[in-house]
Amino acid sequence: MRENAVKRLWEQDRPAFGGWLTIPSAFSAEVMAHQNLDWLCIDMQHGLIDYDTALAMLQAISTTATTPFVRVPWNDTAIIMKMLDAGAYGVIVPMVNSRAEAEAAVAACRYPPQGIRSFGPIRAVYYAGSDYFAHANQEVVCIPQIETTAALENLDGILSVEGVDAVYIGPMDLSISLGLPPQMDSDVPAYAEARQRILEACRRHNVVAGIHSTVASAPKRIAEGFRMVLASSDSSALARAVGEDIRAVRGAEPGAPGGPGYQ
Amino acid sequence: MRENAVKRLWEQDRPAFGGWLTIPSAFSAEVMAHQNLDWLCIDMQHGLIDYDTALAMLQAISTTATTPFVRVPWNDTAIIMKMLDAGAYGVIVPMVNSRAEAEAAVAACRYPPQGIRSFGPIRAVYYAGSDYFAHANQEVVCIPQIETTAALENLDGILSVEGVDAVYIGPMDLSISLGLPPQMDSDVPAYAEARQRILEACRRHNVVAGIHSTVASAPKRIAEGFRMVLASSDSSALARAVGEDIRAVRGAEPGAPGGPGYQ
Amino acid sequence: MRENAVKRLWEQDRPAFGGWLTIPSAFSAEVMAHQNLDWLCIDMQHGLIDYDTALAMLQAISTTATTPFVRVPWNDTAIIMKMLDAGAYGVIVPMVNSRAEAEAAVAACRYPPQGIRSFGPIRAVYYAGSDYFAHANQEVVCIPQIETTAALENLDGILSVEGVDAVYIGPMDLSISLGLPPQMDSDVPAYAEARQRILEACRRHNVVAGIHSTVASAPKRIAEGFRMVLASSDSSALARAVGEDIRAVRGAEPGAPGGPGYQ
Amino acid sequence: MRENAVKRLWEQDRPAFGGWLTIPSAFSAEVMAHQNLDWLCIDMQHGLIDYDTALAMLQAISTTATTPFVRVPWNDTAIIMKMLDAGAYGVIVPMVNSRAEAEAAVAACRYPPQGIRSFGPIRAVYYAGSDYFAHANQEVVCIPQIETTAALENLDGILSVEGVDAVYIGPMDLSISLGLPPQMDSDVPAYAEARQRILEACRRHNVVAGIHSTVASAPKRIAEGFRMVLASSDSSALARAVGEDIRAVRGAEPGAPGGPGYQ
Amino acid sequence: MRENAVKRLWEQDRPAFGGWLTIPSAFSAEVMAHQNLDWLCIDMQHGLIDYDTALAMLQAISTTATTPFVRVPWNDTAIIMKMLDAGAYGVIVPMVNSRAEAEAAVAACRYPPQGIRSFGPIRAVYYAGSDYFAHANQEVVCIPQIETTAALENLDGILSVEGVDAVYIGPMDLSISLGLPPQMDSDVPAYAEARQRILEACRRHNVVAGIHSTVASAPKRIAEGFRMVLASSDSSALARAVGEDIRAVRGAEPGAPGGPGYQ
Amino acid sequence: MRENAVKRLWEQDRPAFGGWLTIPSAFSAEVMAHQNLDWLCIDMQHGLIDYDTALAMLQAISTTATTPFVRVPWNDTAIIMKMLDAGAYGVIVPMVNSRAEAEAAVAACRYPPQGIRSFGPIRAVYYAGSDYFAHANQEVVCIPQIETTAALENLDGILSVEGVDAVYIGPMDLSISLGLPPQMDSDVPAYAEARQRILEACRRHNVVAGIHSTVASAPKRIAEGFRMVLASSDSSALARAVGEDIRAVRGAEPGAPGGPGYQ
Repeated sequence: MRENAVKRLWEQDRPAFGGWLTIPSAFSAEVMAHQNLDWLCIDMQHGLIDYDTALAMLQAISTTATTPFVRVPWNDTAIIMKMLDAGAYGVIVPMVNSRAEAEAAVAACRYPPQGIRSFGPIRAVYYAGSDYFAHANQEVVCIPQIETTAALENLDGILSVEGVDAVYIGPMDLSISLGLPPQMDSDVPAYAEARQRILEACRRHNVVAGIHSTVASAPKRIAEGFRMVLASSDSSALARAVGEDIRAVRGAEPGAPGGPGYQ
Repeated sequence: MRENAVKRLWEQDRPAFGGWLTIPSAFSAEVMAHQNLDWLCIDMQHGLIDYDTALAMLQAISTTATTPFVRVPWNDTAIIMKMLDAGAYGVIVPMVNSRAEAEAAVAACRYPPQGIRSFGPIRAVYYAGSDYFAHANQEVVCIPQIETTAALENLDGILSVEGVDAVYIGPMDLSISLGLPPQMDSDVPAYAEARQRILEACRRHNVVAGIHSTVASAPKRIAEGFRMVLASSDSSALARAVGEDIRAVRGAEPGAPGGPGYQ
Repeated sequence: MRENAVKRLWEQDRPAFGGWLTIPSAFSAEVMAHQNLDWLCIDMQHGLIDYDTALAMLQAISTTATTPFVRVPWNDTAIIMKMLDAGAYGVIVPMVNSRAEAEAAVAACRYPPQGIRSFGPIRAVYYAGSDYFAHANQEVVCIPQIETTAALENLDGILSVEGVDAVYIGPMDLSISLGLPPQMDSDVPAYAEARQRILEACRRHNVVAGIHSTVASAPKRIAEGFRMVLASSDSSALARAVGEDIRAVRGAEPGAPGGPGYQ
Repeated sequence: MRENAVKRLWEQDRPAFGGWLTIPSAFSAEVMAHQNLDWLCIDMQHGLIDYDTALAMLQAISTTATTPFVRVPWNDTAIIMKMLDAGAYGVIVPMVNSRAEAEAAVAACRYPPQGIRSFGPIRAVYYAGSDYFAHANQEVVCIPQIETTAALENLDGILSVEGVDAVYIGPMDLSISLGLPPQMDSDVPAYAEARQRILEACRRHNVVAGIHSTVASAPKRIAEGFRMVLASSDSSALARAVGEDIRAVRGAEPGAPGGPGYQ
Repeated sequence: MRENAVKRLWEQDRPAFGGWLTIPSAFSAEVMAHQNLDWLCIDMQHGLIDYDTALAMLQAISTTATTPFVRVPWNDTAIIMKMLDAGAYGVIVPMVNSRAEAEAAVAACRYPPQGIRSFGPIRAVYYAGSDYFAHANQEVVCIPQIETTAALENLDGILSVEGVDAVYIGPMDLSISLGLPPQMDSDVPAYAEARQRILEACRRHNVVAGIHSTVASAPKRIAEGFRMVLASSDSSALARAVGEDIRAVRGAEPGAPGGPGYQ
Repeated sequence: MRENAVKRLWEQDRPAFGGWLTIPSAFSAEVMAHQNLDWLCIDMQHGLIDYDTALAMLQAISTTATTPFVRVPWNDTAIIMKMLDAGAYGVIVPMVNSRAEAEAAVAACRYPPQGIRSFGPIRAVYYAGSDYFAHANQEVVCIPQIETTAALENLDGILSVEGVDAVYIGPMDLSISLGLPPQMDSDVPAYAEARQRILEACRRHNVVAGIHSTVASAPKRIAEGFRMVLASSDSSALARAVGEDIRAVRGAEPGAPGGPGYQ
């Protein structure tokens, strides 16, 4: 079976740098897959992506060595299994708030006896190799998201579930849950403490700590001990870059600042 | 009929700033349409976009006031008409090398007696208004591309065709045709002279001069007299922004430069 | 944030007239969006529409001022959130039969602390504005459907849930649940009494009363006090209009009534 | 080979009633295919339909006995052949203005020695039967459109081409070409005379006369001698029906005429 | 209502031979639908197929008399109802492990009072006929899968649920659940006994016994008493046939065995 | 630039074995790409494939080392360029009947000064590498089809065009053009002589000889000297394999031969 390169990085305590896909296009996914990232996550929760497009994006990522992850829309057995069959090497599961929810997420990712995954890795065998069944339980990673106060309260329960390879903090949702405005890179004490608490719990349970980050915060998070960080996200990178371009160009033209989006 | 805002800018000798769409996605088009650009061009020639996606992208652009243009794959009557029926307010026609080819491009854009466009503006009437037929010949713009030495030789023939609203230089193809490597913003004399020659011919024939440009060159081109310039392009902006992000993030981690795309 | 125009109508006790979308096409949605309706509902339950098409239809509706609603396939947290992120300004939730189910529907529509909606309004911010988070809990409407005898029994429980903006009667399912044949505009006593009972409960709880209706029944329902009525539905309007056309044309030809669909 | 039922009607001098498809959806096509029409035409010229959708629509029509026609975007050999391979039983070819153009249209429809059609009826054999090659030249119909003054001048040339089964008048384009506004059912003398002239030429050449018509004009055209008439068109029937519905419903509510599309 | 031909076979104690669809294409479905099979199952669980494609495949199957089944991704009310509205004549429901789960599957398939199916058979009425509602509860079949040891333990509970028309053994998952490697046609005692036990329980409860089989095992299963067997599966048949072809062709060329997939 | 492995085989006078793709699906393409073939051809002429699907199929093939070719619908400059930009490493051009047509095909494949290809290899640079422009004229192959008597007459003209890397015989069309029934592997003298004549002309002009073949004929063609042969084709392999399966299974059941496709 093709190895999960991200898991190998983690085994060496090295950080895995990722990219985030929200644009429903296999071409933008392919462009992203050539940008020297360790993993790419197809976001089926907040990204504008459903199964058909996610499948095409998995194929596009498979033209490179970048490891394909999928954030499923919800902690739902059916879609977790369906995305693994399509060749995802890891699933990020949103809003896992209790030990029972973490167990359910893991169970969907593992063939019996470790879980309840149904057999039929129809595309996965082409991507991974014909010995997929023998190794999938080891190579495919399950990554619950910690992003609510409920999850904070159940941290040890969640992190002690056998088969949780990593957790991934959702800073926006965690901030909102803490009564703060949604922010990616906040240093507000309540949020910073929660982040620290998760990190320490991960160390305690020998689970990889991950966090949705930005080009600005990713290095800080790695320094703190996170080993799964986000370097860039497609639609925000696009909007930022094009916005800068048009401001630069219009700025060079005195007295004519506005276009149709200006009002 | 909804006005062609780009044509109004040109009537005031003001530049129209554009964006370029090559990613086949209505969402990335919608993101781009909110970036304060005057026009957006759906590139059906080199972009990875065919009719179905172009149609969805026209709808996405129509959620804003940005003027929608289409670069058709070739100087082909059928596709020009089909994109106008779908609501494009201008077509950019590649590789127009002679007066006859310019006449054909214009004819496809105009209802009789000015042209041979067939009647059936099935989506255009929703976007533009029910009086579309009465005004379309005036509002819809036809923009041949000048991008070969053959076109340079036939400049006056092309520019004197009634109904050519603007021309759009393709710097890459023009460079190659001149025996130079493909470059967007070259100052190589042979290319710079050709660009200047086209600009002057446009002035002579009262045709708007346009050019495929970048954030770096667009201000210079406006200063030279171009009134249709490109500020940004989706897939290259995406690759550039994400590439910068990952380099910044990896650069912050000593001694671990590479990912799967690094080799 | 762009206002929810339907909510404004309701605040003035004015009826909101809607259209129903079951044909999976962004173009038919755009045609419908130009027909002077207050709201359009993309039916992901019985309509032949899944996420990708629904997204394209939301974009098509966004080319007009018509307010976009979505009927989700089921009272499922993941799809409710996903459609709101895509820009829906209201969700109609089928088969809400208890207070707990109504609470779940509302929770999926609201950010904490009112609910559990996850943050990531990736298209919604383009449609609604960058201040979406600050206002979404107020502007986005949650509309459970009352369409079973179980729901009738739990009416007060359902209608007293904070955040239920309106309810929408499904006449067909309610009729079947009452042991009657499926009918849209029935005056059978058992059904008419149930309708009346829901209307009165809505008044008691200050919840907008809505009902799936037809061109024939909508005026009657408004007179009764409903403020959310259906004026037309795409596939049935299409079948009705084309059927009338072909019968009229064939009827004009003596002695030749039948075509391939005639047998 | 499955027979071409429309050709059988014509052999008995009976009219064939058709429907027009411009909405890019296999479901609306299937709805239309159940409306008792003899033929359905997928309009790839002015309809918002490209190959992928046209193929799905051909499959949808094939669930019924309605005969599938395609209007190709232009008199282009490649797309004519491609649509016949996909199972179309007739092609309507726009803007055929000369004998040479009619010959080209026919040649694309016929295997040698009658034409130049390339062999590969990959879906057609499933729809038509495995003996498709033996009968296709007889059963598949080629229908040039007469819709310009140039075509009027070359009527005899066009109609005398062996293999032209019918012609189909495009009233809108023909009107525009005659210097008139685009109208479907005009009785303006210049247009009425042209229509009559085409009808008589068809009789002379034993070619079926067809015309784009409406529910109002179709019976008159049949009375005049046309044997291919249009009874209804999807997007216009939809807009008409829904528009009537909303006007009726709003009209019943005093003093509140407008919705978002009202301005 | 169009009859369910598979149900008629079962009423005569005759086997129904099926095909399996995992390739997301309406054309491959149409090819399969012409291969003399009694039923075709669109596999939305392990097949690479989501709703939009499944809908197109249902239309493709509807061009023939083959009975369309769908395996839903999971025992989920919403998708079961959605596929029946789209015209499926049966649903195969994976991983039904208890009487309660069987009851839920059946309830989703039946209109009240037998179940909770919501009314809106929007495409089904075109495929089945306008009297669909009157007969659907009888004609549409519900087929839970027996594929775990838990299901084996609850066999009588599952099979005694009113409305379970057949069960369908998943040999791979059942093998894994029994601690064996995944195998289609195993004769390992533990698995063979389980198979036999299910068959006998079906006889006891007068439920049709079905099993996922192959060209090799199907005749044996029929001999044993199964009345729903699989004859072929699209992607595995394709891979097998093409693999044989290329091996045959390469084998004929001495000393040059390998291509790009050879290493 | 990634090398064209097929060209390397030809440089060593070794045969290149291919597969043919007519099913519009990126998954069936991916399955085929893992079958040890040297090249795969996406057939946009007779296959049921348009641009969007062809692009997805190119991405699917790019997950392996199999070399991607495209048969374009016709000898049309626009589509040839568009498919090369999408990453095709070769184009098969149907119905090339004269030296001028061969020159046009080659010109569309080559950047100036060898041809007129427009610059914009937007996906090709990701598949091939950033030095694509420097090597594309050498690596990308142009393969006209010889499949008419006209082409036979102009063989030397066609084969002497600089830049024709190979020719590919279309046995069906060539047979029809010779007045014979369409056959893949015919030994009818008129056809066999034509095949031999093409082979000899290829040797004279140092052009690779290719031919559409089958598992049965490919070894013979290689023995004759052809170096580009077809080993298998997706839809015919699928139909053949499934047809065999169902016949085998039904045959094992005495006295019950037929299913819905049997009549």
